[in-house]
Amino acid sequence: MKQLRTYNGEQAAQARIGQVVSDLCDERSYRSVYHRANHDVPMPAIERLSEIVELLRAILFPGYFGNSEVKPETMGYYIGASVDTVYQLLAEQLKRGYCFSCAETETLDCADCERRARDIAVRFIERLPEVRHLLSTDVAAAFEGDPAAKSSGEAIFSYPSIVALTNFRIAHELYRLDVPLIPRIITEMAHSRTGIDLHPGAEIGERFFIDHGTGVVIGETSVIGRNVRLYQGVTLGAKSFPMDDKGNPIKGIPRHPIVEDDVIIYSGATVLGRVTIGRGAVIGGNVWLTRDVPPGGRIMQGAPDENGFSGGGGI
Amino acid sequence: MKQLRTYNGEQAAQARIGQVVSDLCDERSYRSVYHRANHDVPMPAIERLSEIVELLRAILFPGYFGNSEVKPETMGYYIGASVDTVYQLLAEQLKRGYCFSCAETETLDCADCERRARDIAVRFIERLPEVRHLLSTDVAAAFEGDPAAKSSGEAIFSYPSIVALTNFRIAHELYRLDVPLIPRIITEMAHSRTGIDLHPGAEIGERFFIDHGTGVVIGETSVIGRNVRLYQGVTLGAKSFPMDDKGNPIKGIPRHPIVEDDVIIYSGATVLGRVTIGRGAVIGGNVWLTRDVPPGGRIMQGAPDENGFSGGGGI
Amino acid sequence: MKQLRTYNGEQAAQARIGQVVSDLCDERSYRSVYHRANHDVPMPAIERLSEIVELLRAILFPGYFGNSEVKPETMGYYIGASVDTVYQLLAEQLKRGYCFSCAETETLDCADCERRARDIAVRFIERLPEVRHLLSTDVAAAFEGDPAAKSSGEAIFSYPSIVALTNFRIAHELYRLDVPLIPRIITEMAHSRTGIDLHPGAEIGERFFIDHGTGVVIGETSVIGRNVRLYQGVTLGAKSFPMDDKGNPIKGIPRHPIVEDDVIIYSGATVLGRVTIGRGAVIGGNVWLTRDVPPGGRIMQGAPDENGFSGGGGI
Amino acid sequence: MKQLRTYNGEQAAQARIGQVVSDLCDERSYRSVYHRANHDVPMPAIERLSEIVELLRAILFPGYFGNSEVKPETMGYYIGASVDTVYQLLAEQLKRGYCFSCAETETLDCADCERRARDIAVRFIERLPEVRHLLSTDVAAAFEGDPAAKSSGEAIFSYPSIVALTNFRIAHELYRLDVPLIPRIITEMAHSRTGIDLHPGAEIGERFFIDHGTGVVIGETSVIGRNVRLYQGVTLGAKSFPMDDKGNPIKGIPRHPIVEDDVIIYSGATVLGRVTIGRGAVIGGNVWLTRDVPPGGRIMQGAPDENGFSGGGGI
Amino acid sequence: MKQLRTYNGEQAAQARIGQVVSDLCDERSYRSVYHRANHDVPMPAIERLSEIVELLRAILFPGYFGNSEVKPETMGYYIGASVDTVYQLLAEQLKRGYCFSCAETETLDCADCERRARDIAVRFIERLPEVRHLLSTDVAAAFEGDPAAKSSGEAIFSYPSIVALTNFRIAHELYRLDVPLIPRIITEMAHSRTGIDLHPGAEIGERFFIDHGTGVVIGETSVIGRNVRLYQGVTLGAKSFPMDDKGNPIKGIPRHPIVEDDVIIYSGATVLGRVTIGRGAVIGGNVWLTRDVPPGGRIMQGAPDENGFSGGGGI
Amino acid sequence: MKQLRTYNGEQAAQARIGQVVSDLCDERSYRSVYHRANHDVPMPAIERLSEIVELLRAILFPGYFGNSEVKPETMGYYIGASVDTVYQLLAEQLKRGYCFSCAETETLDCADCERRARDIAVRFIERLPEVRHLLSTDVAAAFEGDPAAKSSGEAIFSYPSIVALTNFRIAHELYRLDVPLIPRIITEMAHSRTGIDLHPGAEIGERFFIDHGTGVVIGETSVIGRNVRLYQGVTLGAKSFPMDDKGNPIKGIPRHPIVEDDVIIYSGATVLGRVTIGRGAVIGGNVWLTRDVPPGGRIMQGAPDENGFSGGGGI
Repeated sequence: MKQLRTYNGEQAAQARIGQVVSDLCDERSYRSVYHRANHDVPMPAIERLSEIVELLRAILFPGYFGNSEVKPETMGYYIGASVDTVYQLLAEQLKRGYCFSCAETETLDCADCERRARDIAVRFIERLPEVRHLLSTDVAAAFEGDPAAKSSGEAIFSYPSIVALTNFRIAHELYRLDVPLIPRIITEMAHSRTGIDLHPGAEIGERFFIDHGTGVVIGETSVIGRNVRLYQGVTLGAKSFPMDDKGNPIKGIPRHPIVEDDVIIYSGATVLGRVTIGRGAVIGGNVWLTRDVPPGGRIMQGAPDENGFSGGGGI
Repeated sequence: MKQLRTYNGEQAAQARIGQVVSDLCDERSYRSVYHRANHDVPMPAIERLSEIVELLRAILFPGYFGNSEVKPETMGYYIGASVDTVYQLLAEQLKRGYCFSCAETETLDCADCERRARDIAVRFIERLPEVRHLLSTDVAAAFEGDPAAKSSGEAIFSYPSIVALTNFRIAHELYRLDVPLIPRIITEMAHSRTGIDLHPGAEIGERFFIDHGTGVVIGETSVIGRNVRLYQGVTLGAKSFPMDDKGNPIKGIPRHPIVEDDVIIYSGATVLGRVTIGRGAVIGGNVWLTRDVPPGGRIMQGAPDENGFSGGGGI
Repeated sequence: MKQLRTYNGEQAAQARIGQVVSDLCDERSYRSVYHRANHDVPMPAIERLSEIVELLRAILFPGYFGNSEVKPETMGYYIGASVDTVYQLLAEQLKRGYCFSCAETETLDCADCERRARDIAVRFIERLPEVRHLLSTDVAAAFEGDPAAKSSGEAIFSYPSIVALTNFRIAHELYRLDVPLIPRIITEMAHSRTGIDLHPGAEIGERFFIDHGTGVVIGETSVIGRNVRLYQGVTLGAKSFPMDDKGNPIKGIPRHPIVEDDVIIYSGATVLGRVTIGRGAVIGGNVWLTRDVPPGGRIMQGAPDENGFSGGGGI
Repeated sequence: MKQLRTYNGEQAAQARIGQVVSDLCDERSYRSVYHRANHDVPMPAIERLSEIVELLRAILFPGYFGNSEVKPETMGYYIGASVDTVYQLLAEQLKRGYCFSCAETETLDCADCERRARDIAVRFIERLPEVRHLLSTDVAAAFEGDPAAKSSGEAIFSYPSIVALTNFRIAHELYRLDVPLIPRIITEMAHSRTGIDLHPGAEIGERFFIDHGTGVVIGETSVIGRNVRLYQGVTLGAKSFPMDDKGNPIKGIPRHPIVEDDVIIYSGATVLGRVTIGRGAVIGGNVWLTRDVPPGGRIMQGAPDENGFSGGGGI
Repeated sequence: MKQLRTYNGEQAAQARIGQVVSDLCDERSYRSVYHRANHDVPMPAIERLSEIVELLRAILFPGYFGNSEVKPETMGYYIGASVDTVYQLLAEQLKRGYCFSCAETETLDCADCERRARDIAVRFIERLPEVRHLLSTDVAAAFEGDPAAKSSGEAIFSYPSIVALTNFRIAHELYRLDVPLIPRIITEMAHSRTGIDLHPGAEIGERFFIDHGTGVVIGETSVIGRNVRLYQGVTLGAKSFPMDDKGNPIKGIPRHPIVEDDVIIYSGATVLGRVTIGRGAVIGGNVWLTRDVPPGGRIMQGAPDENGFSGGGGI
Repeated sequence: MKQLRTYNGEQAAQARIGQVVSDLCDERSYRSVYHRANHDVPMPAIERLSEIVELLRAILFPGYFGNSEVKPETMGYYIGASVDTVYQLLAEQLKRGYCFSCAETETLDCADCERRARDIAVRFIERLPEVRHLLSTDVAAAFEGDPAAKSSGEAIFSYPSIVALTNFRIAHELYRLDVPLIPRIITEMAHSRTGIDLHPGAEIGERFFIDHGTGVVIGETSVIGRNVRLYQGVTLGAKSFPMDDKGNPIKGIPRHPIVEDDVIIYSGATVLGRVTIGRGAVIGGNVWLTRDVPPGGRIMQGAPDENGFSGGGGI
């Protein structure tokens, strides 16, 4: 055994690899999976969007994230610098998002994308005080709704519900401003991290809490009132969706549930279609539901428990 | 179009951003979402806790994690250095955890936090041989319980069950030492990575195995015997929890199931409340259960399968 | 209080830590959790495998991942360099995988591992055009199957289904080439990121789509046809598995479902054992199924919905 | 001692810090040290320029830098990808450089900067084969001129002379293309790393070698022939420079030496002004020289050495 | 050849390595090269000090370093956040510096170090406006003194003189506040990067410029007036230093030159001892000088040049 | 202006870039600057060598570098782990160095390189106690020789002389073991950082000190006794070197100075050729010397200073 690898072997390997490269560069191979940058503007950068979200977390929850020694006296510095940095970074990513979407429409030009991106970035930033307010009610709901919570600070710092809702409420503001692509990326970041899949199009009221959360899915046209509590594995989905003439689903039609104030939905329950769960209703675990529930209604799987209601899925 | 962005546009943007910064720095806005560092001691650092957990993984499973060329002759060096580093890093993080909790209680002073942190760090470290022993039984259970497993090494190196249980068994020791906040962060790290949500307060015996694992939730006061096997989506939760006079949940009451030795619970099953699943019982998939099950009992959804028992959810 | 920490305290701490180190280095403690590198070849490196998968993503979806300004004129450079780098990195990791598996068999020598690794790496690379083709059909299925999708590019760039299937289709090719350990690591990466647990051994046809995906489990011997759609929380699992004389599960027996073309399985459904779901069948949400379903069959939980079929779990 | 730090102390500190911040933000304080981004285009990024230079090093010396397993069969991939990446990155940095220089001139608009940057980037790239040729002669000169060199590969991989000349020859091409700012940054990178300060404006022929190099300075209008060798601490500088009416130095006048072919200048020698060192001349160490030297001339400090010529400063 | 490495060979290697470890851990071996942390406070961290210096560079030269899109409207945010971060980071490093020096003196306790560190950090910060003012004069001197400089921005962004003086002027303020160790580390950072070795104890007036700079050394007790210009390789050193009874040099005695206003010293000149170079004097290149020079004096090496004065070493 | 960049422009640019890539991949272009990996073993990795040197610094100066809280009780862990890691990393890099050198000789095979690398790595490690001893004498010399030094710890932690000598003494041991390439890389690292260029072949006795150091060059065959002190800019070089028949310098002949014990050489002095500077001699600054100096001799530039001896260049 003179040589670990014969030269011939490597040469043959190179030839075979060369053939694969050639095949992969054939236009027929890459046509449907290739994105050609419009105006040479690159794709939105996931790392940058992630950085933006972390900056926003630090802005929204000062002292918990970002510099943890921020004081009331110095808060203006840190929040000011972070907000302005968000403005710069977000404007750039929004521009990339608009250019990406040009791929289909071809109607924008770059200066327009730039101007629009800056304008939308400012309008988004103006929503931050309201976003913080909503999140503060979510924090209160988490602390009050979970017997295992030791403090509201613990919820802010470590609860997946707050992680997911922070990303969602950010993404929802961008969605409302008709930003393409990026809202979905931001909620997917939280989906990946928490297992909670909140479509940025959903409307969610204050004091929302999702305990544990893994497997929760809330669809694009869902409407959720205030003080609603969900457990892991709950789906608010579409029952079916109408197709157009070509057999493609028609997009944008209301097709997910309306959940009114003070509703609780226990783990594993599935609610499908444009149904309404009335105020104060309780949906038991693993329930499969495709009909309206009146206010105060109680739906549970199988026979009622002898101890009375058995819906709890909390920890 | 002489300029891509008019100066006026930018100036107006800056003014609007300045207003937002001002609003966010108003004490009424940040009051309930701001953490002021006690004694100027910063928050526990997630990256550092993550580093500690990775060091512990290398200590517990030498050769699999950390330096993969460790030999019996050199093991003392690597384990010694890692254990001492864990001691230093963990003591610092524990101190931060105590100071964070001072926010509520105001009764500690920093030198005390420091001393306590060092003391607890040593006591935690003394539990490592036992933690490793328990994990070695979990590895054996994983290998024996999964027909797809090719070797116990594969389980150690790539199974989410072992990832989640390593974090859990570390966090549980800290929980037993009354460490605030940090145990929960450590189990959340594993929750995020594996979809398995194990509260650090749960008591879990040896030879525990969770197959696939996504969506599993085990609550704070659960008690699990030895040789128990769970599949994805299983919940051991609370049925309901008593409220105090103000309507807040009373914390710390036993409210989760007791699962005795040799029990199997198939995918999607939900067990709620302080019920007891007797030794050797089998709970079928998607079952919703709020009552005791006697030793050897078999609970399944709907009618029994004509082929006999139908609970399997394994891969 | 003269000193923050007394020397005696620290000395005692060091002594106790020293004892723990000594205990952890006792062969009885580490025996079953220690991996001694065969031929001093280290463990496969997770970071490197992750880098390989990201390079493959850039090869398979040019312009979306990797350099986003790649043009038809320069595609040969980028794909060529990435494919050759994958070849080099993958050959190294495959060698590590083979050496890791030597631990049990002791029959290989290192030069053989090296040669085999290079050979398999080339054979894997030759499958890339087919992998890309399959993924392009998955992208089409995702776009057509989700009313919330705005473009196929959005699916490529941000859908967990495409993330998981990319890792799966890569891992599956390696699995078919009898590569140990590494295919499972690659699907676990996607499991951790998406909550979708696809065993690399499964056979999955073209145009496969998993909506939302968290909690999906597809077992090792599953066979899935073309144009199949799944929702979150679906399990294709084993019902039970035969044991050998020693009570260990017998490995490698077909034990998971066969799902024929054009089947839809809604969220939370569980299908167990070597059953066949016939062409065009629809399985409703949360259904528990251990029997064959004929072509065109419709299985749903409880009574049929008054509005007709109620299986939808889409968003 | 109840508290490590009194609150009053910190409050006073914050007030004093606040005053400093206020002073530093006074326009009178920052006026002459502040750069306002023209057209909001940021400064050239040092890290990016450094990345560009490392890519160029990999292009110019394949196998030594960048991927060290590049083969003739795969060279096209790696060099192609690297050259195209240089094109993209450099065009961006050139644009920033032009915009930075707009600060003084105000006459460019951004689209023009963009177009110019792309054009110049291509023209620079077209010079790379010649740059490589020149560097290959420098490598040969280093190997032949240093008795301590074991191979030309050692010179390429580890000699400061080659590091400095690579940066210089890159920067010089950009300088010739009238690129502002960036050429100087690129030679300063090498100056910082090697102690060799080559102004990008100098003209340097092939087969140039600088042994050891620390402290060498070669001024902007120097002209150096082929096969010239320098040792550490040599200065080719200006003797004096004419001032304009306001007492500022007049820029751009030839004011540094002309060094003809085959000259050797030993360590610590200083040559000042627009003098000519004739072909084949030898300048001894520490010599201070402000006059022409005829071809073949020998200049040395003090009396000639009894052993004959004493100029050597080589190692 | 069955095995690449025999087990015996590795075992012997391990034994020999074990012996070395044992020797290195013998107190006689490490005694004089070991630092035991006082009060368990670690060494100053070079990376942190480097971060502090970069933050200061961004504060002193806004728009050039740090965020390059800072505007007058947002400057308060960025400078405020940076100054407060410097305060926090520097206070920590100063504490470490004090604790390090306790090694010799044993008289401080940790709370005192902490308090002192915070106090000195504030006092340092109060000097920043003056430091910026001095540096702005240095920038003007660089631009005016170098015919190759295209703009003062180019000098700020890329001249080693400004790099070295920024570090020096920062370090000098700390030196004046009697901070141990850290000032020297900060000037060494610049020494390493630029080859310019400025002792933090030197006193240097405004409008100071060092062209090229490599090899410049300015000693601890040097005193330099305003508008002084130096070229590469200039030494302002001590001629000799008195010893104490034990033969150790007596520390702190003025032993370096006084250089008055408007002096120029050309490349390679050496000035030694407590001599005075009078106002407006010019010292030629490579001159060796140990005597006073009267105001307006001109010192040069060897005979005067026939073209008149020959001291220039500029580029 | 409809489009920022015309498609035609870009297409032409791509064509021109394609031509350059093609030219650079022509074998005639890359022949003399390309390294083809022998046996596919890559080049030594600079980052890894840098990591090795930093590990060695932590081993040699415990508490100053690496973990700064190492205690006598835990020193064995840290030094053991670091030494074993150095063994593993260095063996790999040595193998690469041997394979790189095979390029010229073609006589080694890889298994041999591997074995030799491991053997040499152990033999190097066995020299570490002696290396530490020598460095401890260098530290003492630095502290005693520099009036500005406040403690020997300051010298260890921040003096370029100690940085350079640590790299040198490591590299010298490797040089003595006939390791190719790598010793030079290690001294070049220090050269780049400190401006001190010590060839790894030089022999340097204990208690060596180089003050300031920038520009110091010590050639390959230099021999330096004990207790020698140098200042910045000193060269110990070759006067001239004999050529072979082809006009290439003959390598390996003693051609640099011998410097006996207790010699001081002041800044800027140049000593060339195989001359001997006798014990206790003092060489003045900027002196140019090519002859022997007797023991106790004093050589200085020009006329003696009226104050007596004028050689000092210290700070």
